[in-house]
Amino acid sequence: MASLFSTTYASLSYGGPAASRPRRRMVAVRAEAINPDIRKTEEKVVDSVLLPEISKPVTAYCRCWRSGTFPLCDGSHLKHNKATGDNVGPLLLKQK
Amino acid sequence: MASLFSTTYASLSYGGPAASRPRRRMVAVRAEAINPDIRKTEEKVVDSVLLPEISKPVTAYCRCWRSGTFPLCDGSHLKHNKATGDNVGPLLLKQK
Repeated sequence: MASLFSTTYASLSYGGPAASRPRRRMVAVRAEAINPDIRKTEEKVVDSVLLPEISKPVTAYCRCWRSGTFPLCDGSHLKHNKATGDNVGPLLLKQK
Repeated sequence: MASLFSTTYASLSYGGPAASRPRRRMVAVRAEAINPDIRKTEEKVVDSVLLPEISKPVTAYCRCWRSGTFPLCDGSHLKHNKATGDNVGPLLLKQK
């Protein structure tokens, strides 16, 4: 199984002073599955949102595959990000 | 860093005939980052969709963190699923 590896670092030394560029956070991401447990009997987990049925001003949908209320977000990305150094977050559907 | 490991198997021998239960696909998922490259300078990647601006009958949003058109889906989950045995797919927003 192929792997992509990189390590945490603060800056590289090309292209001007480091302070002028945003710090790029690098994290190790292997070529492995990202969904540990959600609907694993399904060949592909696809969810559909019928937009006329969205009534709340903001509805958050999970993209971290750790939510206990999937496909809705339950904030589990916070624990995942803290544990792994990742930076994933939800998709917000807004009425206006 | 904590790891969760499991291996691919076809069935277990408890709870009645295997044929009566859907086959549960197990894949190795480590406690690692799932976003290899998208907007890594951001503390948390959150996207907002203003629903009045959605005009197409179906719009697919990426949940595999591999799309070249993130936050939109470009079908990259197919390659990811094939390479890793995962089963992730997009979130579809439908007008009706």
